[in-house]
Amino acid sequence: MQNKIACHLEEIATYAGATLVGDKNKMIHGLNTLANATVDDISFLSNNVYESLLATTHAGCVILLPEDQKLFAGNKLTTNNPYYTFAKVSELFTILSPASGEVHASVVFGSSCQIASDVDIGANVVIGANVTIGHGATIYAGCYIGDSTVIGDNVILYPNVCIYGNTLVGDNTVIHSHVVVGSDGFGFAPTGDGRGSWQKVHQLGGVKIGSNVEIGAGTTIDRGALDCTIIADGVKLDNQIQIAHNVRIGENTAIAACTAIAGSTSIGKRCTIAGSVGIVGHITIVDDVHITAMTMVSKSINKVGSYSSGTPLNETVKWRKNAARFNRLDSIVRNL
Amino acid sequence: MQNKIACHLEEIATYAGATLVGDKNKMIHGLNTLANATVDDISFLSNNVYESLLATTHAGCVILLPEDQKLFAGNKLTTNNPYYTFAKVSELFTILSPASGEVHASVVFGSSCQIASDVDIGANVVIGANVTIGHGATIYAGCYIGDSTVIGDNVILYPNVCIYGNTLVGDNTVIHSHVVVGSDGFGFAPTGDGRGSWQKVHQLGGVKIGSNVEIGAGTTIDRGALDCTIIADGVKLDNQIQIAHNVRIGENTAIAACTAIAGSTSIGKRCTIAGSVGIVGHITIVDDVHITAMTMVSKSINKVGSYSSGTPLNETVKWRKNAARFNRLDSIVRNL
Amino acid sequence: MQNKIACHLEEIATYAGATLVGDKNKMIHGLNTLANATVDDISFLSNNVYESLLATTHAGCVILLPEDQKLFAGNKLTTNNPYYTFAKVSELFTILSPASGEVHASVVFGSSCQIASDVDIGANVVIGANVTIGHGATIYAGCYIGDSTVIGDNVILYPNVCIYGNTLVGDNTVIHSHVVVGSDGFGFAPTGDGRGSWQKVHQLGGVKIGSNVEIGAGTTIDRGALDCTIIADGVKLDNQIQIAHNVRIGENTAIAACTAIAGSTSIGKRCTIAGSVGIVGHITIVDDVHITAMTMVSKSINKVGSYSSGTPLNETVKWRKNAARFNRLDSIVRNL
Repeated sequence: MQNKIACHLEEIATYAGATLVGDKNKMIHGLNTLANATVDDISFLSNNVYESLLATTHAGCVILLPEDQKLFAGNKLTTNNPYYTFAKVSELFTILSPASGEVHASVVFGSSCQIASDVDIGANVVIGANVTIGHGATIYAGCYIGDSTVIGDNVILYPNVCIYGNTLVGDNTVIHSHVVVGSDGFGFAPTGDGRGSWQKVHQLGGVKIGSNVEIGAGTTIDRGALDCTIIADGVKLDNQIQIAHNVRIGENTAIAACTAIAGSTSIGKRCTIAGSVGIVGHITIVDDVHITAMTMVSKSINKVGSYSSGTPLNETVKWRKNAARFNRLDSIVRNL
Repeated sequence: MQNKIACHLEEIATYAGATLVGDKNKMIHGLNTLANATVDDISFLSNNVYESLLATTHAGCVILLPEDQKLFAGNKLTTNNPYYTFAKVSELFTILSPASGEVHASVVFGSSCQIASDVDIGANVVIGANVTIGHGATIYAGCYIGDSTVIGDNVILYPNVCIYGNTLVGDNTVIHSHVVVGSDGFGFAPTGDGRGSWQKVHQLGGVKIGSNVEIGAGTTIDRGALDCTIIADGVKLDNQIQIAHNVRIGENTAIAACTAIAGSTSIGKRCTIAGSVGIVGHITIVDDVHITAMTMVSKSINKVGSYSSGTPLNETVKWRKNAARFNRLDSIVRNL
Repeated sequence: MQNKIACHLEEIATYAGATLVGDKNKMIHGLNTLANATVDDISFLSNNVYESLLATTHAGCVILLPEDQKLFAGNKLTTNNPYYTFAKVSELFTILSPASGEVHASVVFGSSCQIASDVDIGANVVIGANVTIGHGATIYAGCYIGDSTVIGDNVILYPNVCIYGNTLVGDNTVIHSHVVVGSDGFGFAPTGDGRGSWQKVHQLGGVKIGSNVEIGAGTTIDRGALDCTIIADGVKLDNQIQIAHNVRIGENTAIAACTAIAGSTSIGKRCTIAGSVGIVGHITIVDDVHITAMTMVSKSINKVGSYSSGTPLNETVKWRKNAARFNRLDSIVRNL
């Protein structure tokens, strides 16, 4: 099921900036792990745990550290960062299907749009008024782009992405299917009518998404209440993440699936946040923080480090007993 | 990036039902916080924490309590509920882009639909048979409305909303992009074949959504198994919430993002449920309950109050030690 | 709001393989619970808790165990698995609306597709090149099917489903609205540039979904990095589940809403996983495991059984005191 493209090892080495030791004319047709690679595949060693596989792999070439090259008799690419080099090589073996190869006849444009001449827009895309789309952008079928939104160069919007009006999307950013950008933040004021009813706080801000951002399928990013929600350059967001209004996420922070970030929270640069984390609103997390899976972040994090919460997996019958003790923990300790 | 509309202060005071103290002809062009407001903006004070900002704000007008009016020298609107008044004023400064301004030529209708004369329906909307759409409704591009569904007056469906058949949506309700209403509830009976296979329980109920409801992007609401799933008037649902079959949510309850509610659970009126909460099936939560973020609700809540679960944030190395103790907590206490 | 279809009891008994005791010509118009059934409805007893309702129910027929038949005076169907039989009968009372009843004129096809003659494809569906769609498939409006994807016989894709290229969907599989299958897995290699930037690992694998699978609204399933993500035959996935790249889920496993499974994890057959569970990557869960709601699964599960984590619901003021003790639990125990 993989896309198969053929490259000479010499071409691969040059593209990835690695040193070729072996047959420069060797043809490579795909990428794979050491365990599964065939003679047509290139593989990599980035973790010593897998070192023993070098003796048995069928890979036609292995990417590894210079100091490891004696461990493999076949063709190799040496580099100081084998996993990065492997990732770089993966670019050569991916094919982006065209959205339609042109602007499909069914695309609907509002007035006063500025669309670069070389964009590729699929069927049934609907584009509002005053929208700008940059060079080389690919907009797949069924996307919606609201009024006055600006889409940068080389952006990819996969099918059925919805971007409301007044959004900026930076160059080279990739947004997967069913992402929503610019929906209303959750803002309601109690009317004080005694029945608990709410007055909507209309959400008048926008969303600014930087360059080289990737946003996974089904993620939602709300527009700001007054200012903008901001996703900085290089941020990587996995699937089904929720970003509330006025959140700010710093450069190159990566967040795994199903994490939710409440309103007005600010997250630093280079953070790595695991999946299903919950982060409350109106707090600040500094740069270079790591948060483990399913953690509840209920206060600001002011110091670099790794943070967690929760209780560990257990058999249900044992868990139930421990959990019952937890609910009396304070009185147990008081009575010691 | 804000929509800018101009209003006289007199017009704003009348619209919001507040008392104007100052220049009735002053033009206001936007809303902002005390810290960020310009001379063209209106702002508000609803929390004494920000009182000192009244001395330095550039706001052209501030909404505040009558007893606070001496704290601000400029134009002001006095009211007993400044945040509500601010929210009300926000209505004057929002613009709803048209879906197409008419019924777009690409809209597909099934047979026997009753569509009010003044609806605004965007491109590529697909509407089933026997659908009713009320006056003043706005249906954005790419929405789907299944057979026999009824959409009330002034409803807004943002792009790519999917509403299956046999759904009622009340007047003035707003549904954001990628919401799904009426998908099948998760119902399967073990076949008893010894291989663990399942027989689908076909989901024959519908969904009833009241008036003045708001539903955030990516939320899913399943149809009932036999009866209906019910979202009462005035309920506010944030993004990526999951409402299973036969759930009932009472009037004016507000639920934050990523909360999941399992089947047949009934939630009272005026509850406020924070984000990423999990609520098991077949339980009842009474009126006026508050639940904090990421809480697991595994039993009925019969008493008004605030409820929580979970453990607090900690550095991972410290958390790991405490968590290990948790898993032996029952035996530790037994041995005391 | 229910679909109403009429069947004779004899027809129902034959279809469901149950024994009819009573009037074979009795007409049944719907299904309902014992409490709510009218004389036109069929109901069931599968839990002795509801036995007393047999004395008062208005149901026109009740499905029950042979040994319980003396408890109900009216028409009955006897069977060894009443809930399964009820589920089977539900098939007779559901109606699938046509997508368009044909291939709608607005459908866009890429080159070299193989589409069975009897498929029903709704408006604005966009289909890539080399796509195969089997007999009896129903593809609702607004779906997207990428290049080289194969859709089996009798598959149902509800509106706005997105299936990227190189996906296999087995026969009789049902996929609800806004599901995304085949989006990129979350794979990025640190570039080592000192600024924390990331190089995308292009995702070259596909997704294989078996037969008789059901996938709930808003669920996302990523394509594999090199190999495929695999959902085996008979798997049932509820709404808003996240399946990361290279996950494997075994036959007939059922997973409730909002559960997230990280990359390369393998889950056995016949597991039942409750809602909002988080499962970390690169672990293995054996067959026949049950996991309770909101559990964090941070290590492999090698033994059949039921597993849990978390702390129980409590009033917030009490919870706060216990939670504070949790964060000092290790030192409390050390000091005992």
